[in-house]
Amino acid sequence: MPVFVESAHDARDTRINPAHLTALPRLAAPPPTEGDNYEVVVVGSGPAGILSSVLLARYGLASVLTVDSKPESVHAGQADGLQPRTLEVLQSLDLAHEVLTQGCQMHEVAFWNPTDGDGKGIERTAFVPDVAVAARYPHEVTIHQGRIERILNEDLEKHGNAVQRGWEVTKFQLEEGEGEFPVVVTMQKTGGDEKRVVRCKHLIGADGAHSTVRKGMGLSLEGDTTDHVWGVIDTVCTTTFPDIRKRCAIHSSAGSIMIIPRERISGGAVLTRIYCQMEDSPAADKVASKESRGKVTLERIMEQARRVLAPYTIEFGHVDWWAAYQIGQRVAPKFQMSDSKGVPRVHIAGDACHTHSPKAGQGMNVSMMDAYNLSWKLAHTLLGLAPSSILHTYESERHSIAEQLIAFDRSFSTLFSTPLTTTSHTTSGLTHDEFLRVFRTGGGFTSGCGIEYSGSTLVDTSVRGVVTDGLRESGLLWPGRRVMNVRTKRFADANPRDLQDDMPSTGVYRLLVLLPSAFRATPGDFAGLLTAYSADIPARFPQGAVETVIVFPGERGNLEWTDFPACVRAQGEWTVLGDHYGCVYGTFSVDVAKGAVAVVRPDGYVGVVAGLQEGGDGVVDGWLRGVLVGV
Amino acid sequence: MPVFVESAHDARDTRINPAHLTALPRLAAPPPTEGDNYEVVVVGSGPAGILSSVLLARYGLASVLTVDSKPESVHAGQADGLQPRTLEVLQSLDLAHEVLTQGCQMHEVAFWNPTDGDGKGIERTAFVPDVAVAARYPHEVTIHQGRIERILNEDLEKHGNAVQRGWEVTKFQLEEGEGEFPVVVTMQKTGGDEKRVVRCKHLIGADGAHSTVRKGMGLSLEGDTTDHVWGVIDTVCTTTFPDIRKRCAIHSSAGSIMIIPRERISGGAVLTRIYCQMEDSPAADKVASKESRGKVTLERIMEQARRVLAPYTIEFGHVDWWAAYQIGQRVAPKFQMSDSKGVPRVHIAGDACHTHSPKAGQGMNVSMMDAYNLSWKLAHTLLGLAPSSILHTYESERHSIAEQLIAFDRSFSTLFSTPLTTTSHTTSGLTHDEFLRVFRTGGGFTSGCGIEYSGSTLVDTSVRGVVTDGLRESGLLWPGRRVMNVRTKRFADANPRDLQDDMPSTGVYRLLVLLPSAFRATPGDFAGLLTAYSADIPARFPQGAVETVIVFPGERGNLEWTDFPACVRAQGEWTVLGDHYGCVYGTFSVDVAKGAVAVVRPDGYVGVVAGLQEGGDGVVDGWLRGVLVGV
Repeated sequence: MPVFVESAHDARDTRINPAHLTALPRLAAPPPTEGDNYEVVVVGSGPAGILSSVLLARYGLASVLTVDSKPESVHAGQADGLQPRTLEVLQSLDLAHEVLTQGCQMHEVAFWNPTDGDGKGIERTAFVPDVAVAARYPHEVTIHQGRIERILNEDLEKHGNAVQRGWEVTKFQLEEGEGEFPVVVTMQKTGGDEKRVVRCKHLIGADGAHSTVRKGMGLSLEGDTTDHVWGVIDTVCTTTFPDIRKRCAIHSSAGSIMIIPRERISGGAVLTRIYCQMEDSPAADKVASKESRGKVTLERIMEQARRVLAPYTIEFGHVDWWAAYQIGQRVAPKFQMSDSKGVPRVHIAGDACHTHSPKAGQGMNVSMMDAYNLSWKLAHTLLGLAPSSILHTYESERHSIAEQLIAFDRSFSTLFSTPLTTTSHTTSGLTHDEFLRVFRTGGGFTSGCGIEYSGSTLVDTSVRGVVTDGLRESGLLWPGRRVMNVRTKRFADANPRDLQDDMPSTGVYRLLVLLPSAFRATPGDFAGLLTAYSADIPARFPQGAVETVIVFPGERGNLEWTDFPACVRAQGEWTVLGDHYGCVYGTFSVDVAKGAVAVVRPDGYVGVVAGLQEGGDGVVDGWLRGVLVGV
Repeated sequence: MPVFVESAHDARDTRINPAHLTALPRLAAPPPTEGDNYEVVVVGSGPAGILSSVLLARYGLASVLTVDSKPESVHAGQADGLQPRTLEVLQSLDLAHEVLTQGCQMHEVAFWNPTDGDGKGIERTAFVPDVAVAARYPHEVTIHQGRIERILNEDLEKHGNAVQRGWEVTKFQLEEGEGEFPVVVTMQKTGGDEKRVVRCKHLIGADGAHSTVRKGMGLSLEGDTTDHVWGVIDTVCTTTFPDIRKRCAIHSSAGSIMIIPRERISGGAVLTRIYCQMEDSPAADKVASKESRGKVTLERIMEQARRVLAPYTIEFGHVDWWAAYQIGQRVAPKFQMSDSKGVPRVHIAGDACHTHSPKAGQGMNVSMMDAYNLSWKLAHTLLGLAPSSILHTYESERHSIAEQLIAFDRSFSTLFSTPLTTTSHTTSGLTHDEFLRVFRTGGGFTSGCGIEYSGSTLVDTSVRGVVTDGLRESGLLWPGRRVMNVRTKRFADANPRDLQDDMPSTGVYRLLVLLPSAFRATPGDFAGLLTAYSADIPARFPQGAVETVIVFPGERGNLEWTDFPACVRAQGEWTVLGDHYGCVYGTFSVDVAKGAVAVVRPDGYVGVVAGLQEGGDGVVDGWLRGVLVGV
């Protein structure tokens, strides 16, 4: 276009990601800028550690040191599965795109059992959806753990911080006499003599199953170690087995395997992970089981997979990685250590807290969700937005999840390792049904979408008749559960919107206001309530810490922007959403004749729900006063 | 998970993007590695230039030099609109994510006219969808041009090349006696004396409306310059006008404005672009029009916007950029210059070829689509995959598009600039209807999705009774039109797939095989045809240059992987797709009782369509022999 007069007054940023999001306000004194003092030290940069660092950076904490003893990140093997809730969280950080497009999406599970009749071969008995609960992403994704760590490391660097590699933490201690940095952490250069002592307000131990931080807290992982020996292999294979690109649970008369399809890699090849049961029964004692593990070789794993899949053939090409392991479910008795005033100062997350078998694809997910639960609470406390008492909910919420994880894994693993006692159809059918039942009922937990935190400062479990109790896995708006994604249409610009995208992980609370049908006829009657929720209540707390999202029933129809009160028009352009597609109230199980209000925590879980009137009359304000400072 | 025996044989790449895609094969001699010699020199790194460079790099050409005279990229103002087809192309390069999520999606257009009755104010007369044709993305996106350039520059760097800034091309000449690099390009350091002479096989002039390359070809832009003076402003504003976040065409008795909502920027602010007609009628001559342009000031643009929007109020806050311009539609008579053997050696693209008004948001789009059309043809020629004769289709295809662009822009702009002669409802209603008609019929062109290339080596216009001629804008599979996106479900892993995502811009031809319903009953009957399309025909051309995508009707039902012939099972895991959602055959207007085959060009446009049998009997092979070398 031929321009003749032109004047540019500003240079528009070419990378602000996402442009409109801002960091949390800081009411506390500025962070330290001198000496090796930090607000937080994160030990370990596996999934739990690196996600903690990313979140703290995004919430506006610059004084964070992340160290890792390893000189570089994971190259092959290890965890590979991302569950639906983890995908939702990555999406809430705008970090899901590469994972969703480059990973392998598992939408279906195929169940194979011994052939009806002779029991000598295998036959498919069912296809079932991989994810049985309501979820924004109705599938798991498998992708190399190193790639997920790379994505998170890049994001950390984009937000101005980076992991310091090659530092191994050797010990820590609490020295409370010493001002505002009571935790003293000693580390040394990996493979060298150089020592370094740093101080911090909070220490996160995300340093794995052999966690130095956990040991420093005087804790160890507790629980059974069952003794089934399994082999696992990541390989590029060629097979006549028709379901190789689907998740498969295969029981044969020769044993059991699980197939986990993986991502496509360079050169047009595709990875497949195979879990392979190596022994029919647990070894008698520790010595015997160590012996049986030692006997596992790559060739034996491949041979066992061939036997289970027969009469289908499988040829193993390139092998990325293989390992032998024993299923063991253990959990640390506590996840935090407090100072003399009762303020939690040391926190462990991920494998440092819990270990379990890899077969349900939980490890990386539960670890990242530990970090996701802890980070915003730490940030709120350090920024002066919240009392430190909210930190205790990290242990109460996540320890309970770890116990559920262990319980689920125990039943799932045991069941899977149990050989079929007979190949007759009746017996194998029973086993198959039992297997399917555990798979399905566990789906809420394994998907991450069925997690429900119990009552605490952060979860008011009363529902006040606002939400109809029903199938909780269907997405209802329930205290302690995450807000299910629903599709809406934004009023201001008629954009179709996913509700979860309007509640990104920026560390703020949201008042989710669901207007009743009467609003359509007499919008003016709701001006007072809308003003309370959009302006009055948020104004009582630190600026920017409470946002409001408003949903009205139905399509736009003859509603005009002027039907909303001035404070909504001024601030709510992006967060007034219509239930254009008719799914919001039904999914949430909220009566459209009455409406409702919920406070959604920074991590997307419902803190409290109330009727619109009682919410405005004090329930919302009262709940928020327990978790935020007033202004 | 406690691992006791572990062995990793490989380091899995943590960044391969997309992992499974490979560069095109190279049959030609290796590119030059010494001296300032290049296979391609690209002049200019605006949208047309930088996209050319990105595509050439992705197609596997490393010997490409991109120069730009400007020391850095655009900071504010200029083009901001991406059309649906451009979004499809960016998606085909996995470059759409940031644009789609961070840009402003325009889904609706609001039309405002003088108030019925007194004509003193304005009233909304209609909301219409922003995009009226079948498109994967049923909206435009506005986002700062500099940001799009940043995304493309980053991708170029990821693929191993980078723009060399601060070099201004001063002239070029053809010196055919001198071996394989006949184009000699002279440049000098911007703002300095340093000279540089480079040689290349092909020169792309993407150097804007004042193109040095175009002038070197002895060409100038030809056509009218109409004399309506407009002002444009990018601003953060506050207004009582209710549709400020929608694209608006506003006719008032005080003149016309267009509102283009823009992206959200830092600090919670939002940009709005306003185009504002400054004069009621064209000035009498060049001198007069220069004078009237000179009179345009920021304050006058704002004042005119205020008058048109009255009685609504608008306050202008921060102003990013403003400009005054005159609508002029001009096009170069030729886009290429050939050597003495008739091989096109110099090519111009983008603003170097055509200028027009910005109001339909076409500039950046048509420019990028020029580059998209040219780049794969250049790559195929340089890699030795195709005869150089295909290069001529760049001019024939894109010059025709430029002429359509000019014609559309002329009618759209004139109509928009025409003042309403009366404010009575009858007359303004007529104008409004006329305006709407032009808007709607132009939608196929402006969206980019209605482009239809005419007959050539690369487009066989006969449809052989295979596709029912109907509303072409609805997505039918028609020679010269792009393949509309349709939703399918992949057989191998039950993944829902967008067909366009299985035809990414990797520079290869695809045989799109649409199986008939009879396949469901007797799949074995089609083994011969499927083998021809999946193995025999591709094998006659350079390896990797022809891929096959197979669609079968309906859901999976009782189809098994073994119902497909061995060559499909070996190579087609990712490209056997079911019409699970029942939209493929209908959208394409292909009779499911008969099926069809189409060859899809590397740029996603249909080259030829045929019945399944006649396609296998020679139509497909014959067409491919015109555009690819045999092996």
